Amino acid sequence: MINEFSMLRKKMSGKYMFSNILGCFVLDNNLNVIDMHVWKNSQEYADKEKVEEKLKKKYKKFLELNDKKEDKILQMFHDQKYFEQFHKRNVVYAKQKVRESVQKDTLLIQVVNTIDELDKVINMLVRRLREWYGYYNPETTRKIQDNEKFVELVLKKGKKELLGEMGISSDVSLGGELSKDDVSAIKDYAKKIIELFSLREQQKDYLDKLMDEICPNMTALTGTLIGAKLIEKAGSLERLMGFPASTIQIIGAEKALFRHMRNKSKNLPPKYGILHEHPFISNVKYEFKGKAARQLADKIAIAVKVDYFKGKFVGKELREKIEKQIKKWQKK
Amino acid sequence: MINEFSMLRKKMSGKYMFSNILGCFVLDNNLNVIDMHVWKNSQEYADKEKVEEKLKKKYKKFLELNDKKEDKILQMFHDQKYFEQFHKRNVVYAKQKVRESVQKDTLLIQVVNTIDELDKVINMLVRRLREWYGYYNPETTRKIQDNEKFVELVLKKGKKELLGEMGISSDVSLGGELSKDDVSAIKDYAKKIIELFSLREQQKDYLDKLMDEICPNMTALTGTLIGAKLIEKAGSLERLMGFPASTIQIIGAEKALFRHMRNKSKNLPPKYGILHEHPFISNVKYEFKGKAARQLADKIAIAVKVDYFKGKFVGKELREKIEKQIKKWQKK
Repeated sequence: MINEFSMLRKKMSGKYMFSNILGCFVLDNNLNVIDMHVWKNSQEYADKEKVEEKLKKKYKKFLELNDKKEDKILQMFHDQKYFEQFHKRNVVYAKQKVRESVQKDTLLIQVVNTIDELDKVINMLVRRLREWYGYYNPETTRKIQDNEKFVELVLKKGKKELLGEMGISSDVSLGGELSKDDVSAIKDYAKKIIELFSLREQQKDYLDKLMDEICPNMTALTGTLIGAKLIEKAGSLERLMGFPASTIQIIGAEKALFRHMRNKSKNLPPKYGILHEHPFISNVKYEFKGKAARQLADKIAIAVKVDYFKGKFVGKELREKIEKQIKKWQKK
Repeated sequence: MINEFSMLRKKMSGKYMFSNILGCFVLDNNLNVIDMHVWKNSQEYADKEKVEEKLKKKYKKFLELNDKKEDKILQMFHDQKYFEQFHKRNVVYAKQKVRESVQKDTLLIQVVNTIDELDKVINMLVRRLREWYGYYNPETTRKIQDNEKFVELVLKKGKKELLGEMGISSDVSLGGELSKDDVSAIKDYAKKIIELFSLREQQKDYLDKLMDEICPNMTALTGTLIGAKLIEKAGSLERLMGFPASTIQIIGAEKALFRHMRNKSKNLPPKYGILHEHPFISNVKYEFKGKAARQLADKIAIAVKVDYFKGKFVGKELREKIEKQIKKWQKK
């Protein structure tokens, strides 16, 4: 009898603790709130363990909630008086999370795409410049294949000088005679293209810096652009970190992969995606390319994990390991 | 007998004249060359009538060549000794023609395309800027719809100032906090976009000047851009001049036209192509748009012909005529 009574007492004095976005609540055995701590700001909610510890010391003897009890507590919050607070705090919390979601790798993805687009834009504009300037000086236009060099020459040297360098007199040139205004319109255009080239350079430097900050280990293995493209395709450094090496190996070859999965007999699985631009792969003999890609992806998978958890720098070591492996497969 | 003899004499003394790219040749009745004038330069060939006149005065009594005789003369030039000269002169002549083919309207087409491409490029770059800057300050990004204004604001004002203008404190903004370097990378990018906007303005001014030079009459009717696009689609001012009004009316609607021609019952013929951007058409009630386009195309066809043959300025007159016509069809 005494035993039963003490059991009951123990049960009665048992308490429950429940935390949500509003605060931390202490409830007695009948689920009446006997104490609560309302969060003052979202920081307190983020560190809710501190408050919970404090309350645990104060009241002791907490029982664990079972599903049934939890349901009842949750029903308590169905009360209209909580709604406004719930909504307000959720908005604040969500905003904070959105704000915090802008990490260095978010910017990195933007920069990679910017560089990609600048390349496309520059190509498009240079193609137009070639056609336009080609009416004036077709010989130089045809001779200079490199885009950047071509735009620089258009800007810096006159037609006579350029033709003279090729040993062509301007009477023999196929280009028409243009007025000074016409030529200066072309030069204005060329000037802006040159500036876009230098913008691309600038953005590349910025990308280098970002990569060095976010993932020095992977960058040591892949270089800036390929590494950044891997992160871009994965969506974030965190997601890339979660990928197995086999996935990293074929990032960027999704189309080929699904073609293979639909029709295995006809289509071999892809050996590499973005990685195929990497010198470790492109400099290797054809029959070893797949192997090299697997090796590289293995090491990248390790490097990304080290980067994500801010481990020490192992990039050089990893790189040397592959270099040793790949040496014997290299093209002569 | 005497008669016959004089006839024969007359025949004997008859001479033929034959000009080609090498020179002007005088041949006797048996088609032997008795005199020739070899062109000294391509200019002489262009003005060959002068030399021909001179030779005609010197020898008199030229007979007309018939086909048979001409065949024989042409065979004479099959001789190998002429080949090198033929080739050389043809190259010089062709080069000259190519050089001369670069007219103001050739440049105009390049400039129209340049402006079109700049618009595309600017749109593409601003779309990226919006995404990128949107991580930093999404509220302003969403609010400012106009691209040029948006880029200017990004460049000129800080985040705090921009948010302040909308009455948002930066704690409530959804944008993440970026370091100074990150923001300046965005600003470098925005700066180049602003410069592209001003390049577009510059090229537009240049286009205005070209249009005023080439076709003041058409420009008075169509404005710079639409007029330039008409020339671009036609290929040159000369070709546009050759088009009937009905063709000018539907330039730029080739797809719709051929769809109509393939399947007349299902697809109505197009009413206008490039012209639909013209305020004379866009400001007119729907049911009169076709009529307005026909009127406008009529007048453009006249204006282009005047422009091509360098007639006096009638653009204003033509424009007033349509304006009067169109007034009653305008949207209220």
